[in-house]
Amino acid sequence: MIKQYSRFVTFQFFLAIILTGPALALTDALPSWNEGTSKSAILGFVAKVTKEDSPDYVPPAERIAVFDNDGTLWAEQPMYFQAIFAFDRINDLAPQHPEWKTKEPFASILKGDVKSALAGGEKALVELVMATHAGMTAEEFNKTVKDWIGTAKHPQTKRLYTEMVYQPMLELLAYLRDNGFKTFIVSGGGIEFMRPWAESVYGIPPEQVVGSSGKLKFEVHDGKPVLLKLPEINFIDDKAGKPVGINQHIGRRPLMAFGNSDGDFQMLEWTTAGEGPRFGLLIHHTDKEREWAYDRDSHIGRLVRGLDEGPKRGWTIVSMKNDWKQVFPIDKP
Amino acid sequence: MIKQYSRFVTFQFFLAIILTGPALALTDALPSWNEGTSKSAILGFVAKVTKEDSPDYVPPAERIAVFDNDGTLWAEQPMYFQAIFAFDRINDLAPQHPEWKTKEPFASILKGDVKSALAGGEKALVELVMATHAGMTAEEFNKTVKDWIGTAKHPQTKRLYTEMVYQPMLELLAYLRDNGFKTFIVSGGGIEFMRPWAESVYGIPPEQVVGSSGKLKFEVHDGKPVLLKLPEINFIDDKAGKPVGINQHIGRRPLMAFGNSDGDFQMLEWTTAGEGPRFGLLIHHTDKEREWAYDRDSHIGRLVRGLDEGPKRGWTIVSMKNDWKQVFPIDKP
Repeated sequence: MIKQYSRFVTFQFFLAIILTGPALALTDALPSWNEGTSKSAILGFVAKVTKEDSPDYVPPAERIAVFDNDGTLWAEQPMYFQAIFAFDRINDLAPQHPEWKTKEPFASILKGDVKSALAGGEKALVELVMATHAGMTAEEFNKTVKDWIGTAKHPQTKRLYTEMVYQPMLELLAYLRDNGFKTFIVSGGGIEFMRPWAESVYGIPPEQVVGSSGKLKFEVHDGKPVLLKLPEINFIDDKAGKPVGINQHIGRRPLMAFGNSDGDFQMLEWTTAGEGPRFGLLIHHTDKEREWAYDRDSHIGRLVRGLDEGPKRGWTIVSMKNDWKQVFPIDKP
Repeated sequence: MIKQYSRFVTFQFFLAIILTGPALALTDALPSWNEGTSKSAILGFVAKVTKEDSPDYVPPAERIAVFDNDGTLWAEQPMYFQAIFAFDRINDLAPQHPEWKTKEPFASILKGDVKSALAGGEKALVELVMATHAGMTAEEFNKTVKDWIGTAKHPQTKRLYTEMVYQPMLELLAYLRDNGFKTFIVSGGGIEFMRPWAESVYGIPPEQVVGSSGKLKFEVHDGKPVLLKLPEINFIDDKAGKPVGINQHIGRRPLMAFGNSDGDFQMLEWTTAGEGPRFGLLIHHTDKEREWAYDRDSHIGRLVRGLDEGPKRGWTIVSMKNDWKQVFPIDKP
């Protein structure tokens, strides 16, 4: 029997080599990334923190990776998709607000004149957000977002917004999770705007989404407890707010941070100042054919300090044009 | 060879039955819980939401369980342990604050007269917390807590505070995690006071701790980014604040909620008002021999509404005296 058994084991072993050996060796976890310094930097970093005999080994519990959303996981042109959501809401809610016809910034939005609407600066934007993101329960808002994200189309590509996520970043998220990382979104966007779809689109559950938020109030209406969204800002998760949001929600310093604009600078600065191995990466939008090309002079996703200081700080700068084989799950024709 | 192989498989199968079959059948996941309605309620609920063919099946991603800390996971008498930490800090910091000798509430604390110190009510308490929990970086505070929790002893039991956690609740946390639940702390206590030890003591990582917090500010000192703790309250995670904290951090309604005082009422109310199966449990401190007995008239962990309304709402009320075989990992002699 011993002989038979050992023959069986050898056969199994042989089968294993045939079936999984070459597969493991040839599988590319990041097929939409071109070979080059950016891809090597990612693969090299993950290898060194996950190999148990590596001097840079980091236990799984501390493998935290944080990702900006707008411009890092999905597109942000011609304007933040959440702003388009707010404008669509203004149009939907207009019948209940006849006064908006003559009141700025609403009147301009209703005429389709976004530029004039936003001429009022931050005050106008806050007014638009408050009018569209408050005065309802958290569950009602969740449903509103789900309905919109399932049907609304991008003004230029005519695609669903969830089709305008970056294929290389979807692969990166999965690759990091396969290597024991917990992946978080840390975005200036609204926490309650991202949560309803982040799990199905990015594989990131609601409890791993950090973002800007309005204040909430717990009330009991006719015996039913509700969380009411108030027209007051609770927290702005942008720039110097990002490390604060990370500490508040995650409570440990990330190992890896991914962004694309100067709004992410402090998040990368905080992450890469930690002891031991750390990784910072900025996506540079350089591809006007497949996506958009913008940086220093852009009104959205402005990237100046990151380009000037990032390389000196050891951060990886990804050129979308050169480093990405594919941009969207389905690229523009 | 086929015959040999099948004999081998049968032997393996036989071994498996011998080794794991009876073990699985006889293992009690909650050995410190006496048999009774409380234990049955927990086991029955977990069985019905985890069995794939159950009409009440809940997918793992939605299995969120939230736990109050003081009085639910560890003791809270003769006063919140975090208050004792604050008083110890006042004594440690006194040499740098000669003015405290004559300034209340500090003067009373330095004389060991807690009662007079707290006569100033909430204002006095906030002053004490601000003086001991702010004016340093988040990392410095983390280290201070770690040093204290590793050495400070309870005034009555002379045990480490981390030895005053409840054995039945440690078993419950592990049991729920074994059944695919994510376990969170949702406490009125300080988020940064709990995080440094919650992972090693409860198996709950920092990103699953929700609590009260002070404001933080990101600054760069001599090129080094720091998070500075400001003497300003950011959020109070108690009573109606608990559902708000849950929504902010977790972003979905829990399936199970565990508490012990009226400060947990809204958390259980919010949890159990969700659709489908939900579970609420309150621990009633009834054991003056092994722990403490207190409820309606207690200045700490007051429990009135929970006792009056809990049973009607279908919540499980645990009697520490009757339901727990053991209270602490090492019970009082």
